[in-house]
Amino acid sequence: MNIDTLIHARWIIPVEPDSRVYDHHSIAIDSGKIVAILPASAAMEQFSALEEHYLDRHALIPGLINAHTHAAMTLFRGLADDLPLMQWLNDHIWPAEQKWIGPEFVSDGSRLAIAEMLRSGTTCFNDMYLYPDHTAEIASSIGIRSVIGLIMVDFPTAWAKDPDEYLIRGERVHNNFRHDPMVRTAFAPHAPYTVSDGPLQRISTLAEELDIPVHMHLHETMNEIRQSIELYGKRPLQRLCDLGLASSRLIAVHMTQLEPYEIETLGQYGIHVVHCPESNLKLASGFCPVKELIEHGINVALGTDSAASNNDLDMFGEMRVASLLAKGITGDSTCLSAFTTLQMATINGARALGMDDISGSLTVDKAADIVAVDLGTISTQPLYDPISQIVYAGNSQLVSDVWIAGKQLLRNHELTNIDTAQVLRKTQSWKEKICQQIPVT
Amino acid sequence: MNIDTLIHARWIIPVEPDSRVYDHHSIAIDSGKIVAILPASAAMEQFSALEEHYLDRHALIPGLINAHTHAAMTLFRGLADDLPLMQWLNDHIWPAEQKWIGPEFVSDGSRLAIAEMLRSGTTCFNDMYLYPDHTAEIASSIGIRSVIGLIMVDFPTAWAKDPDEYLIRGERVHNNFRHDPMVRTAFAPHAPYTVSDGPLQRISTLAEELDIPVHMHLHETMNEIRQSIELYGKRPLQRLCDLGLASSRLIAVHMTQLEPYEIETLGQYGIHVVHCPESNLKLASGFCPVKELIEHGINVALGTDSAASNNDLDMFGEMRVASLLAKGITGDSTCLSAFTTLQMATINGARALGMDDISGSLTVDKAADIVAVDLGTISTQPLYDPISQIVYAGNSQLVSDVWIAGKQLLRNHELTNIDTAQVLRKTQSWKEKICQQIPVT
Repeated sequence: MNIDTLIHARWIIPVEPDSRVYDHHSIAIDSGKIVAILPASAAMEQFSALEEHYLDRHALIPGLINAHTHAAMTLFRGLADDLPLMQWLNDHIWPAEQKWIGPEFVSDGSRLAIAEMLRSGTTCFNDMYLYPDHTAEIASSIGIRSVIGLIMVDFPTAWAKDPDEYLIRGERVHNNFRHDPMVRTAFAPHAPYTVSDGPLQRISTLAEELDIPVHMHLHETMNEIRQSIELYGKRPLQRLCDLGLASSRLIAVHMTQLEPYEIETLGQYGIHVVHCPESNLKLASGFCPVKELIEHGINVALGTDSAASNNDLDMFGEMRVASLLAKGITGDSTCLSAFTTLQMATINGARALGMDDISGSLTVDKAADIVAVDLGTISTQPLYDPISQIVYAGNSQLVSDVWIAGKQLLRNHELTNIDTAQVLRKTQSWKEKICQQIPVT
Repeated sequence: MNIDTLIHARWIIPVEPDSRVYDHHSIAIDSGKIVAILPASAAMEQFSALEEHYLDRHALIPGLINAHTHAAMTLFRGLADDLPLMQWLNDHIWPAEQKWIGPEFVSDGSRLAIAEMLRSGTTCFNDMYLYPDHTAEIASSIGIRSVIGLIMVDFPTAWAKDPDEYLIRGERVHNNFRHDPMVRTAFAPHAPYTVSDGPLQRISTLAEELDIPVHMHLHETMNEIRQSIELYGKRPLQRLCDLGLASSRLIAVHMTQLEPYEIETLGQYGIHVVHCPESNLKLASGFCPVKELIEHGINVALGTDSAASNNDLDMFGEMRVASLLAKGITGDSTCLSAFTTLQMATINGARALGMDDISGSLTVDKAADIVAVDLGTISTQPLYDPISQIVYAGNSQLVSDVWIAGKQLLRNHELTNIDTAQVLRKTQSWKEKICQQIPVT
């Protein structure tokens, strides 16, 4: 049978249906989809491919899914660190955003972010930011899979002046990309404390009509809870339930403040949780009870949050910290095993975004979203268990090759579809402009 | 003036006397020592060097000091993960050790560890393991700085049969390396629960006589505390005080269980603490109260612990996790700033090991233990603050060049003094032997 691509690998870790690891197997790809996973010897007999790859010290894993980020903010990476949250926002991030955000900033920042994400094995990202049409455009042109948040806040920004305009512009973005196979959209009301009841109710209705998810920061800090009780007489999750937003469409990001009965609520409605451990630690927001959530059958995905609060978009670091932190916090060194953590970064992300039919695992008929991890280096030897090695000793620099929908976007550590030198030049020029305004050490 | 080496760098971060960052400066090196740090233009006028390096997108930092590891155990990296501590030790690590530990295992494991440490910017490590003479020998022949633990436990091992023999063999190692400028020794009684009062008292006396530190696991888990109270009627720190071991010679590793009055005790005696955040999290041991220790003026260094419980020897990961975890645990996002964390990984380590007169900062007359970090990559751009970038967005793969005592041991990411292919071959052969014994997935 003639096909597009054959990848022969030392190990294949499909993630579904379970934690099995295939030795010396191959993935056959045609028209962007996985058509077979089989022993290398059989693959060479059955298939004749236009392109063949021999990765004899590598593991193939499903493309990583960054379930929460603000890609364009990568241009603010490390702009202000070691500050209290409100000082960080009020004195640094918001003034910088007010001054600089526009179509060009968002395009250039998104391109920088996508370059970093591809180099570290991320094949799909769930974004929330202003000028989402520009992030969508850049992502689509490069070929990375994305879920673009149709941002909404009560107050005016450079993108829209009021909730009506956010909705109109958001729906326009949705329509413009509805036939793009690599771009999906989600409503993205920023947070319970920045969006009032009226707009949230409209989003609830529209999300059903358009059949898209709702992506929202939720229960990020204790302060958010206090403020909600003061203003609405209830905790934010209860308020969303009352507004009709609690459902399996809801992608609830952070969730560091949860009462036991709220964990039940999440399970009851099938709400997805996105855990961002590095951002939560760095901003001292609190701890998402991941072990308990998983025990209650709740789908938990992983996100990096923005590079302004992380300070990278590296899902390997996020996996490692997620697993270590859960063990440390619960006192249970067996929880969030390497495999559970890898599921969070792949299939759970796909489920949260409603695309587990096309990505999140290496399965016949799914899109060929594949990452090759080189486990033959000094820092990943000896190797007793590939999954353990990836999560506990792995790092983004081991990612050698990335395919999305069968198209190779990283080849032997080099981006095939992004001019790295140009990205670095543009980033440097933004840095110089931004530094003129804000004194930095 | 004729000298050996000139390194011109985009930034130099000396760590002492403070958090200053020099732009476009150079380090002049002669006979293994730093002779000057000055603007690049002045350096080119004043010095004529045999070797010159131009690192125009790099920051030079002091060599990182891994203040607690068990180098040879790197051969057990990922052998058994996601297990309770005692099951991990009883069913996996100890049987594997009993079966395999010997001079060849320790030599090969140490070489693998040193290769990883050099590639990730570590120029000095504080070790504790059996056959310390072999680790010392390998470290010395490669040229990395080491403090070799003269291991002691009550029970027999392949290395010695009883406390007397541990002491005799330990003193022999001390004497054999006393004139080696790159090797120092420390007494290394394993832990309060594995060494009884008599041997500890003798170590206390001998450490004074030989003028060397005492390196010990201390207050690692709640269980250790409980056991000590049961057996000795007091907590381990109090027991060490009573045995005369509390002093500025003592390097106390882990310290996850501390009462407020014990923090006072540490300060009073000038005891050094080594924080191993990734190991403590992974084994769910507890949290070292680093913020409080620093506020009490206690010297806190950083260590990776062994690759069997980490699972790497990467001090960049350790810095990042140390800083994030402290913020998360205390709820104070301003604590363990990037600079404080970099101090922990450099000058504080040197202080703990009693070698801050020769390493730990880029200072005239200190040894040229220098690491070049490439900050010009996609994942470290834009760059507003080099120190912040190193700690929060840095990773070990940014380390391009390493000098120890002026000798270049890593050049453009390649080890100059270790045959990487041979290390990988030997590691693979150990893995095959070990796997024959222990079924792995």
